[in-house]
Amino acid sequence: MAEHIVRFADRAEPITVRAGTLLVEAARRLGLDIQQPCGGQGRCGRCAVRVESGRVRRRSVLRLSKADVEAGYALACQTVVEGDVSVVVPPVEQIERRLTTDHVAPEVVVPVGYDPEKAQTIGRVFLRLSPPSMDDQTDDWARLCTALRRRTGIDRLRASLPQIRELGGTLRSSGWHVGLTYDTAGEPPGTARLIKVGPMASEASEPLCGLAIDVGTTTVTVFLVDLLTGEVTAQSSEYNQQIARGEDIISRIVYATKGGGGEELRELVLATINGRVAAVCGRANIEPAAIVKATLTGNSTMTHLLLGIPPESIRLEPFITSINQPPLLSARDVGITMCSDGTVDLLPGVASYLGADITAGVLSSGLRSSAETTLFIDIGTNGEMVLGSSQWLVSCACSAGPAFEGSGVVHGMRADRGAIEEVWIDGRSYEPTFRVIGKGQPRGICGSGLISLAAEMFLTGILDKGGHIDESLASPRIRRGSHGAEYVVAWGGDTANGDDITITAVDIDNLLRAKAAVYAGFNVLADRVGVELDSVERVLIGGAFGKYINVEKAVDIGLLPDLPWERFEFLGNTSVKGAYLSLLDREMRAEVGEIASAMTYVELSADNSFYEAFTSALFLPHTDLSRFPSVETSMT
Amino acid sequence: MAEHIVRFADRAEPITVRAGTLLVEAARRLGLDIQQPCGGQGRCGRCAVRVESGRVRRRSVLRLSKADVEAGYALACQTVVEGDVSVVVPPVEQIERRLTTDHVAPEVVVPVGYDPEKAQTIGRVFLRLSPPSMDDQTDDWARLCTALRRRTGIDRLRASLPQIRELGGTLRSSGWHVGLTYDTAGEPPGTARLIKVGPMASEASEPLCGLAIDVGTTTVTVFLVDLLTGEVTAQSSEYNQQIARGEDIISRIVYATKGGGGEELRELVLATINGRVAAVCGRANIEPAAIVKATLTGNSTMTHLLLGIPPESIRLEPFITSINQPPLLSARDVGITMCSDGTVDLLPGVASYLGADITAGVLSSGLRSSAETTLFIDIGTNGEMVLGSSQWLVSCACSAGPAFEGSGVVHGMRADRGAIEEVWIDGRSYEPTFRVIGKGQPRGICGSGLISLAAEMFLTGILDKGGHIDESLASPRIRRGSHGAEYVVAWGGDTANGDDITITAVDIDNLLRAKAAVYAGFNVLADRVGVELDSVERVLIGGAFGKYINVEKAVDIGLLPDLPWERFEFLGNTSVKGAYLSLLDREMRAEVGEIASAMTYVELSADNSFYEAFTSALFLPHTDLSRFPSVETSMT
Repeated sequence: MAEHIVRFADRAEPITVRAGTLLVEAARRLGLDIQQPCGGQGRCGRCAVRVESGRVRRRSVLRLSKADVEAGYALACQTVVEGDVSVVVPPVEQIERRLTTDHVAPEVVVPVGYDPEKAQTIGRVFLRLSPPSMDDQTDDWARLCTALRRRTGIDRLRASLPQIRELGGTLRSSGWHVGLTYDTAGEPPGTARLIKVGPMASEASEPLCGLAIDVGTTTVTVFLVDLLTGEVTAQSSEYNQQIARGEDIISRIVYATKGGGGEELRELVLATINGRVAAVCGRANIEPAAIVKATLTGNSTMTHLLLGIPPESIRLEPFITSINQPPLLSARDVGITMCSDGTVDLLPGVASYLGADITAGVLSSGLRSSAETTLFIDIGTNGEMVLGSSQWLVSCACSAGPAFEGSGVVHGMRADRGAIEEVWIDGRSYEPTFRVIGKGQPRGICGSGLISLAAEMFLTGILDKGGHIDESLASPRIRRGSHGAEYVVAWGGDTANGDDITITAVDIDNLLRAKAAVYAGFNVLADRVGVELDSVERVLIGGAFGKYINVEKAVDIGLLPDLPWERFEFLGNTSVKGAYLSLLDREMRAEVGEIASAMTYVELSADNSFYEAFTSALFLPHTDLSRFPSVETSMT
Repeated sequence: MAEHIVRFADRAEPITVRAGTLLVEAARRLGLDIQQPCGGQGRCGRCAVRVESGRVRRRSVLRLSKADVEAGYALACQTVVEGDVSVVVPPVEQIERRLTTDHVAPEVVVPVGYDPEKAQTIGRVFLRLSPPSMDDQTDDWARLCTALRRRTGIDRLRASLPQIRELGGTLRSSGWHVGLTYDTAGEPPGTARLIKVGPMASEASEPLCGLAIDVGTTTVTVFLVDLLTGEVTAQSSEYNQQIARGEDIISRIVYATKGGGGEELRELVLATINGRVAAVCGRANIEPAAIVKATLTGNSTMTHLLLGIPPESIRLEPFITSINQPPLLSARDVGITMCSDGTVDLLPGVASYLGADITAGVLSSGLRSSAETTLFIDIGTNGEMVLGSSQWLVSCACSAGPAFEGSGVVHGMRADRGAIEEVWIDGRSYEPTFRVIGKGQPRGICGSGLISLAAEMFLTGILDKGGHIDESLASPRIRRGSHGAEYVVAWGGDTANGDDITITAVDIDNLLRAKAAVYAGFNVLADRVGVELDSVERVLIGGAFGKYINVEKAVDIGLLPDLPWERFEFLGNTSVKGAYLSLLDREMRAEVGEIASAMTYVELSADNSFYEAFTSALFLPHTDLSRFPSVETSMT
């Protein structure tokens, strides 16, 4: 097959590829990251590059205008090489690799009265073995097991082959005085798994650490936990490196089904996790080998990708995971940089779109600790919600689309530096003011900014009940653009890149569909158990999104139910908190299992009432205004 | 560092190595196998090569005469390159890689009334799962486990991560009709380990097979067993490829402690095993994936080397193994070519020099099925012996040296084509006649040939009670050679290589020490339990050595106790038979464990009475002739 040379403008070295190779693949081989928010499906247009010379074939030109194509633009994920080519990657599209460590810093406190002896499945003992002699030729392994049994009553110790290989050397180099760490999690009574054996001197001076890890679609958060005190000694967060291969779950699943894509995504999320583990170890000045256990949460797609389990069936009706409750694994199995035989515990999920992040969230939110009817929600690309109390749990998930994550709208962006996160509009001049994350000039609008903007536009009459922009209003900010009517939030002279930041009719429509899906989900859950939405006594909001949202504005657009503000509570990253609690305490770990088992999951796409509730919610705030009395008041 | 070119006479391609590289290493890199029976310690002289030109440095010239060195001879394992060199490897020293498949063919019969349902820990069920739907979104893993529980009552199934990764694809491609194989061995009640899941159609047509494997120091024997009938459907044996890195256990341990030596030995024995597995699969026309379990025996050094466990401590006082009872492992862990998650069960050993080959041998010998006082022996480089009955077991091991294996004597060789295996000497002319394995001209003398020869020499007066050759006898065959007095067994004109085949005073001395060690071992065991050796009711002889030995001659030299012939029984490879029985039947497997636990091991080197017994046995047949009444009769 013919081979061609591909040059990228900012790379000195060209690369030789076979004819038919995608540009995105050629770039990847050069170590050049081209953003593919839609997972390389040719849907989003974010991977557009300019072909300066040479022959390529565009399989798709979706989102490119005729002029774009004439100017050489091509979608890197949809364009194959057919000759020697030179390519320019517009800088704005290169993936920003900001290490935004600590941009989420959930507050966790050690549970009152935490007693590691009682709560932990991890044990560490120090054993002074009598050395073998001609009178006692017991083999090394039996010698160790006997000493352990005498000390702890554990009469069966399971070990991996690598551990057995190292044992003899360790016993002899340590002078037969060792520290032994084991885990009884998941084992029958009297049985434990060996985690490590080391010389007593070094083990005694080494801390005993664990990790609580939340593998989010967008952000990976790692807590380093001292298992002897329960304290979080360091924490670190970073964007999941998989983002470069798809911003949302569906894009990632699509990417994973391509040849090698699943393995690539597995490596990317592992690199993210291990990068953060290295960071927390460095900060706490410990060796990764001191980490003997990791408890992980994440949605079902994230856990499948992390474990290298094909996720295809998650996105295809009837939406099935390969496994909701993975077995206990070792760090060696999974690939996390810590003690090789340390336990890796992925908390149980419930369904394809109701993963361990939610069961862990329910745990840490305290929903089950009260008989009050409580709504727990975690909104991102997907909106997951649980209605329940100490007695019962019912849950569902709806696809909100990417609007709340800041993509899927023309000037949308993640809640990051430069994002407009809150907007106020003058009811007479229609002039906006806004707050930008990190203060500087705006670069786009994030999810909370969109909600705020839509609420203001509605309350000032720029939007009507149906979500249409009133083009009759006398303001230069209301105009007609290439996507129909639009409102200019920031003029080009005030923005980071010199372009106007606008919200279009199409954007509003996307936002309406997103909020209608979430609100319809609440309705279906309430109907299912026969309670009224306004009888919900607590609304617990988890997830990073919940940290920035303005409840009043969310109620204004009909995203959240119209309840007294004091019933709302923002909990931050409930998922990582649940992992933390499960890592610390076997009873908490057991409770996550009970939550997963007890939870009734309602599949909305198989639920007739959902579509009706969704349609009714496609208005601002709702077709039935009596559901939103406080908004009715604001409007008058 | 300087590099030099090394040429080997029969290789067209030279090889470039760093200065200081051993000749044996240069040869190895060219794929040229140079025999190192002593494990590269420079002890045996068998790796001698001739350096035709170029500079080398000889670290040791042990066993080389001054004339040898002047003629260019050098020990390949002790000689390093210091310039460009040309080397000739004498053909006789190149390792003979005969694939002597089936050269040992133990007869095994399916135990009477074998019922796989009752006896097996392996189970295979065929499950028709109902496919998932919007009304039943159970995850794949839970769906499988539920179906298995309903069918078998197994309520916990353990799986490896690779199995979970493949599950979704298998279920869907099979139309949700699958065959599932599991193993309950070593698991608590209600628990099983998943071995494999496959489409029902292909699984139903696939046999369910196991392997019984004896990893001998010299020979590896593999049985392919149909687990549904218990029949051995194919078998194959081959020299353990480790032989090229040391003929005896001690040499292998020494080799293993050199950098990379342990890993090399592990790969060599795995290559041997997997070669035989491929052979039996080919013969039975099955796929390796149909093999779901392997049960292995071998001495402790062999099991350590196979598992990659450092064996050093086995040879250093106080002679300790890393592990006598390895846990159940998977084929993936160990590296055997079969179903990756198939069970690999290494039977338990007792001590450094009393391994699983002996516990398995005791099992299959039937020693425990009778109240009679029974002596079980397996003699090779080491002599292992067990005295016992259904009620008690006492055992020991003695280092017999390599005499019985045919090395360690000037014209010794393995029991292979060309070996003199039996000798008769005319009492008047002192002229011998002999039988050669494979008929042709003799190449050397094997262990049984040596015993036979020594017995004949003793009974004809060529040897006196002290083992000295009577040089006053009038025979051209009795002469003085470079090693002192010697007897010519075959004149050069009658031998394969034209050299005289002799037995020297030094050889006789080695043989005496070997037989004395074994007999002293018997004495110590009998003393330990307070029985007389002549009250032993049965002598069960296992091992390949036992197959060829002539009991009368062995008694004549005082190797075996002087008991009526009918008390002796030859059992062949009792080790592989024990593996076979343990593979077939969980009760047999449990019994091997009981044998290992019940056996009292006597460390001879810590036993004062051993040295005394050994010294007394350094005569022909013994200092105390009353112990050998039948020999006394022959002598008169």
